[in-house]
Amino acid sequence: MSLSEYEPPQPVVEAAVRIALAEDLGMLGDVTSIAGVVEDSHARAVFRSRGEGVLAGTACATETFRCIDPDVAVTWRLSDGEPLSAGTEFGVVEGLTRSILAGERVALNFVGHLSGVASLTRRYVRSAHGRCRILDTRKTLPGLRALQKAAVRAGGGYNHRDSLSDAVLFKDNHLTVLGITRSVERARARWPGRMVEVECDALDQVLEAIAAGVDRVMLDNMTPEQVREAVAAVGGAAAIEVSGGITLDTVSEYAATGADFVSVGALTHSAGVLDIGLDFE
Amino acid sequence: MSLSEYEPPQPVVEAAVRIALAEDLGMLGDVTSIAGVVEDSHARAVFRSRGEGVLAGTACATETFRCIDPDVAVTWRLSDGEPLSAGTEFGVVEGLTRSILAGERVALNFVGHLSGVASLTRRYVRSAHGRCRILDTRKTLPGLRALQKAAVRAGGGYNHRDSLSDAVLFKDNHLTVLGITRSVERARARWPGRMVEVECDALDQVLEAIAAGVDRVMLDNMTPEQVREAVAAVGGAAAIEVSGGITLDTVSEYAATGADFVSVGALTHSAGVLDIGLDFE
Amino acid sequence: MSLSEYEPPQPVVEAAVRIALAEDLGMLGDVTSIAGVVEDSHARAVFRSRGEGVLAGTACATETFRCIDPDVAVTWRLSDGEPLSAGTEFGVVEGLTRSILAGERVALNFVGHLSGVASLTRRYVRSAHGRCRILDTRKTLPGLRALQKAAVRAGGGYNHRDSLSDAVLFKDNHLTVLGITRSVERARARWPGRMVEVECDALDQVLEAIAAGVDRVMLDNMTPEQVREAVAAVGGAAAIEVSGGITLDTVSEYAATGADFVSVGALTHSAGVLDIGLDFE
Amino acid sequence: MSLSEYEPPQPVVEAAVRIALAEDLGMLGDVTSIAGVVEDSHARAVFRSRGEGVLAGTACATETFRCIDPDVAVTWRLSDGEPLSAGTEFGVVEGLTRSILAGERVALNFVGHLSGVASLTRRYVRSAHGRCRILDTRKTLPGLRALQKAAVRAGGGYNHRDSLSDAVLFKDNHLTVLGITRSVERARARWPGRMVEVECDALDQVLEAIAAGVDRVMLDNMTPEQVREAVAAVGGAAAIEVSGGITLDTVSEYAATGADFVSVGALTHSAGVLDIGLDFE
Amino acid sequence: MSLSEYEPPQPVVEAAVRIALAEDLGMLGDVTSIAGVVEDSHARAVFRSRGEGVLAGTACATETFRCIDPDVAVTWRLSDGEPLSAGTEFGVVEGLTRSILAGERVALNFVGHLSGVASLTRRYVRSAHGRCRILDTRKTLPGLRALQKAAVRAGGGYNHRDSLSDAVLFKDNHLTVLGITRSVERARARWPGRMVEVECDALDQVLEAIAAGVDRVMLDNMTPEQVREAVAAVGGAAAIEVSGGITLDTVSEYAATGADFVSVGALTHSAGVLDIGLDFE
Amino acid sequence: MSLSEYEPPQPVVEAAVRIALAEDLGMLGDVTSIAGVVEDSHARAVFRSRGEGVLAGTACATETFRCIDPDVAVTWRLSDGEPLSAGTEFGVVEGLTRSILAGERVALNFVGHLSGVASLTRRYVRSAHGRCRILDTRKTLPGLRALQKAAVRAGGGYNHRDSLSDAVLFKDNHLTVLGITRSVERARARWPGRMVEVECDALDQVLEAIAAGVDRVMLDNMTPEQVREAVAAVGGAAAIEVSGGITLDTVSEYAATGADFVSVGALTHSAGVLDIGLDFE
Repeated sequence: MSLSEYEPPQPVVEAAVRIALAEDLGMLGDVTSIAGVVEDSHARAVFRSRGEGVLAGTACATETFRCIDPDVAVTWRLSDGEPLSAGTEFGVVEGLTRSILAGERVALNFVGHLSGVASLTRRYVRSAHGRCRILDTRKTLPGLRALQKAAVRAGGGYNHRDSLSDAVLFKDNHLTVLGITRSVERARARWPGRMVEVECDALDQVLEAIAAGVDRVMLDNMTPEQVREAVAAVGGAAAIEVSGGITLDTVSEYAATGADFVSVGALTHSAGVLDIGLDFE
Repeated sequence: MSLSEYEPPQPVVEAAVRIALAEDLGMLGDVTSIAGVVEDSHARAVFRSRGEGVLAGTACATETFRCIDPDVAVTWRLSDGEPLSAGTEFGVVEGLTRSILAGERVALNFVGHLSGVASLTRRYVRSAHGRCRILDTRKTLPGLRALQKAAVRAGGGYNHRDSLSDAVLFKDNHLTVLGITRSVERARARWPGRMVEVECDALDQVLEAIAAGVDRVMLDNMTPEQVREAVAAVGGAAAIEVSGGITLDTVSEYAATGADFVSVGALTHSAGVLDIGLDFE
Repeated sequence: MSLSEYEPPQPVVEAAVRIALAEDLGMLGDVTSIAGVVEDSHARAVFRSRGEGVLAGTACATETFRCIDPDVAVTWRLSDGEPLSAGTEFGVVEGLTRSILAGERVALNFVGHLSGVASLTRRYVRSAHGRCRILDTRKTLPGLRALQKAAVRAGGGYNHRDSLSDAVLFKDNHLTVLGITRSVERARARWPGRMVEVECDALDQVLEAIAAGVDRVMLDNMTPEQVREAVAAVGGAAAIEVSGGITLDTVSEYAATGADFVSVGALTHSAGVLDIGLDFE
Repeated sequence: MSLSEYEPPQPVVEAAVRIALAEDLGMLGDVTSIAGVVEDSHARAVFRSRGEGVLAGTACATETFRCIDPDVAVTWRLSDGEPLSAGTEFGVVEGLTRSILAGERVALNFVGHLSGVASLTRRYVRSAHGRCRILDTRKTLPGLRALQKAAVRAGGGYNHRDSLSDAVLFKDNHLTVLGITRSVERARARWPGRMVEVECDALDQVLEAIAAGVDRVMLDNMTPEQVREAVAAVGGAAAIEVSGGITLDTVSEYAATGADFVSVGALTHSAGVLDIGLDFE
Repeated sequence: MSLSEYEPPQPVVEAAVRIALAEDLGMLGDVTSIAGVVEDSHARAVFRSRGEGVLAGTACATETFRCIDPDVAVTWRLSDGEPLSAGTEFGVVEGLTRSILAGERVALNFVGHLSGVASLTRRYVRSAHGRCRILDTRKTLPGLRALQKAAVRAGGGYNHRDSLSDAVLFKDNHLTVLGITRSVERARARWPGRMVEVECDALDQVLEAIAAGVDRVMLDNMTPEQVREAVAAVGGAAAIEVSGGITLDTVSEYAATGADFVSVGALTHSAGVLDIGLDFE
Repeated sequence: MSLSEYEPPQPVVEAAVRIALAEDLGMLGDVTSIAGVVEDSHARAVFRSRGEGVLAGTACATETFRCIDPDVAVTWRLSDGEPLSAGTEFGVVEGLTRSILAGERVALNFVGHLSGVASLTRRYVRSAHGRCRILDTRKTLPGLRALQKAAVRAGGGYNHRDSLSDAVLFKDNHLTVLGITRSVERARARWPGRMVEVECDALDQVLEAIAAGVDRVMLDNMTPEQVREAVAAVGGAAAIEVSGGITLDTVSEYAATGADFVSVGALTHSAGVLDIGLDFE
């Protein structure tokens, strides 16, 4: 077993798989296999990509089969983070046919969704041409955050804060009373060692945030032109994150502004599935 | 409190919200609000749609705030299943500013994702022009199935089986040994009162399934022309479900074939978020 | 490991065993063994039936010992669903004496209760002489439904719906406003692919239900004579389930009426234990 | 809210109800009510006993409805431990019809089973004519122990040890190596303040146990005559518990022997349901 | 695997470790190792005591590594309850460096705290010079009771009651209405087989408690002189427990009074950590 | 309800209290109160400090009583973070006597331990005379981390990283292969926006870390003299944390060196309880 940078912690996998299996097996288990498949039948099935993308979620698939039947053998030819093309065979499952069929859908739901996240991330990363880094957000699907954040890494992206505990990020609604300077000061005082970032809609806010000594400014809903201007004004005094509705079409333009990061909620809230099948031989 | 057909069971909501809050609050809670927002500040914020679609997930948002701070008041102007346009204000949250900010992201993640599922469903439903019904599948996101299935109903869709326990659905891999006729017979014997369906790639399979007395046939990856032919051959002896890569572009054509159902994995595995904000006043 | 039709899904077993062990081990574990049994003592003990019946629950017993001490070896000579007589030795446990004693009661509680359910089911099945099938109900013991439903299958019975989600079953209290015809119509519209059943107290209700196109009628608290009359009236247009206080004394008479199913709450709400011991050698 | 001696701790109730509701509501909730009952319909329903017995489990029923819909009002006319006859109305539920129907089965499963345990206990207690006390055992149904033990108290019985941690009870299998005297000595040394009891099959064992200073002897599978002899031999030096297959027919005879306790596994492993209905008005 | 008297039940360990790992791994796992340690690097590390004390908590450490990565091998040279000196190497961990580092802190937190409890207990035990036994209390740290009670045993102490269910212990607040005699009588009647103890502040209470037939009296906040007087007055009619702010300085004096037990809340509420390291080789 | 900076997130409190109540109520609940306290007796009890310190844990106490009996009223005169002296009455509980007694120990275990953590923190803070800030560590008690970290804040301390996910902190064992410079570089690349810190034993390491651009250096087990030298060498280029066995006796000396932070494992691994009582009136 490896602890790869592209995989979530194993206890998270263990818990997520149990919830997913409870959903899918229900009270009776796989009634179809019981009716249609002879009890001692064995099978071998291959995970095969039907599209192009990046693999993620293998640890969840392994755990799915292990939890249903520890005698099922799962072996991976590729690891999370590796590229897939249509037709790529990246894993093999062998064991009782009923056991494989009982786990198939859950395993595919994990691998398909998480590879979808990784693959969409990779597309943003490619479109950024190495000029800036792609970040995820807290706009994740409930219960799947740790898994999705690992998938973002598998796709070549980087993780923004995990949770509200993780870093200070002031937005409009936080700043109405105390303003940027005083809020940043209080954040530094209260939460040493945590990044302090301020969301800015306009250049004067950026300048106030920089003067207050933030680690990063988030330029929200600005045009590439405005971003470029802000980058120049900041002059390296803080990292710059650009955010707000940036798409695959526009990411390249933003990446070229000199900003350090583009953060993209879509990576985790709107990634479609990567089409993956489990083909029986 | 209502038990609407468009909402998931309350105990499911209770559990899902606790998992999501554990993810998002982390160890310390909302460090940003603690730094930037005065402890006794109160606020009022409005849920506002920024796009067009269908509302879903309100029960999760209510529970989110209730769990963080029971003194927060959440009131809904619209219910799950009702249409949203850009600018529609559909709910109000009032209470301590810190409490609202602490729950904002989790509430939005639920409402945004589930409204996204409902909205995509509604688009398929509209494209089918009432000629057939749109079904979901078991291709759901792990841990979110009950919530997603309620959102599909909110969007005007219908639920296929919940879990492997719920109905018998023979696919290729189940039929290699025993074949259709004998498998259906065994399913009827073992699982009375459960729907029996067979996935068919070709007309002869359809005919064998009908002869075996199935409740429904699933026509997989057929052209509209092939579907029409199968519909004629079945002649009402079983319900007909069409499946396999049907998109918003093609659903209309399939809906016109006379099939009863089109099932669409994308409703739950690839719905993008509906953009919704919580705007402070 | 097998996925037999007589066993519950493994994740259900895993969860149920953990709850039962938490109850029985308490804070300190088995204080008696610690006081009376030498730490490195080994033992071999045999599961032996002290009465006649049907075996069920072996997966729970296996998991019980596995969870306390993975070095305990549990081997089964018989599987769930097989007959037991007084004296039948059907399993062997070997390992540290303390480990076996620590798991003994929990393992026996599972096997004794579930074999009790299976055994009572078998008696009903035998009394029906193959003329109709015996169904369970939702009158199960809280927390044990999936296990009990597997035990019913082990005893030769069949499963009615799992949960309120699983099928539509209109009773008196559902029909007061909308009546049978309209309720059935709504059920078909809302929940395609799910069985629709109506509970009927009188023949006119049966006829209305049949006309409405239900899948099954439940004849509640009718005499065998009334059932026979209803069977004739239905004429095969729907399946017929008889229910309401049917006992081992009366099941044979009801089974002879031509009804398809007799459902018996007692299988799961009132099955006594099958007396089983774990005899040390 | 009261903390009656006949009720389990509230946190246990809270957890048990959530498990039971997850089983019964499934993914979709009550599909029947959604189809057949108008959303804003209200109802009033009465818990009514259809047989004679003792009430138990009301806290679970209250929690069931509270968890589904906090607006449902549940009021009890009788409390756990009070007698029921056929026709006794002991509680009222008022609220949305859908909410009541959604909780009906789970509430009845708790109340019916636990009242069944209480009622069977009461029958043993009555048959003992106050000459000895009736004890439960650890032969409980997995996951329901705390609830069942409260029901035994509601029926007039007493609780033996809760778990393996709770008291020392040497049986045959514990005594093979060290024997009674030394085992008791070790138990006293290791576990001060916990009852030490020895299961005895013969008078010489009883005498050895008494000499070793046990708190209680369990006379296992002895005839009333043998028990009487042992009672005389013990002469008050320890409490005496009689156990082993004692039935409602034989309990009176054993109670008359002078033993202090009769313990009955059947109270919790084989109590049938008490037939209780929730009648809509 | 052994079931030692010094270890908690394995299911308790399993649950506690999962909670602790969820706390410490967070969303991303060990970000430091991912950055600094090559993925396939292996290591061997030794558990080494940096102080003098008693070992406890090894089962938790084993489970910690097993849960992160089953391929990590953990072997113990010493068992819970054995003495440690500064420099003692008592266990070895071998496997992937990242896996060892990911579990290091959680394993040390368990072993350090529980060895701290065991070590403090041992100091009290030694100071009592075998004249009385040292008991723990219910003043434990939330969520850690079973683990702490095992550690107390490992240190040579004994366990008082586990929970409020476990024994009757009347204190001032219980006795205001009914008084000692009647309360004890009611306790005997309601809870046969459970120890009944009364907390006494003065000799007349002790005498009343003895007359009422209690199993044990707790002498609360008395001087050694008062205890000696009470011991004489009791004359062996009940066990005597001394409690109330007894420290390592005073325990010897109390132990010499003839009391049977000294109970010490500090064992579990105020034990400092035993300094233990995991040294990489 | 407030979301104070000195309190943990409410969902964490909810979960921790349920675990603690399951431990302390056991199967039967408070057997002592059932025996000794009349069912409808009411009481009023006051939380009173018996020593000097800082209050923490009130949210856990509130939740404890709410979970046992929602009719118990808990009101606080002081909040977490406020000072306590011997005799300070800081809260009142009113309700059924049995309900109060059932929750007393759990409430006190939370408040006593967490106030102990806050109080010890306050002592370190005072000894530092405002010259540096006191930090906690990950050396927390398993399952209590979020609660302990809030208590540290209540005591005037600051939180170091929450979990392994939260910040990069290279120690010896991480640096053996790649060394400081390259490890820091990799950390910056992999985990943008997270603090990077390096533990240093010697000045050359400090200089290398500074050159590598770390946010903070941890000076481990250095003398105050060595720290002063390092502070001078760093010259404000990074924050400086001092760690390693710093006690109440030595903290003042370290605080005077010019270091920014002193981190103290003892705050959470070795804080004794603050003696607090719940006095009935």
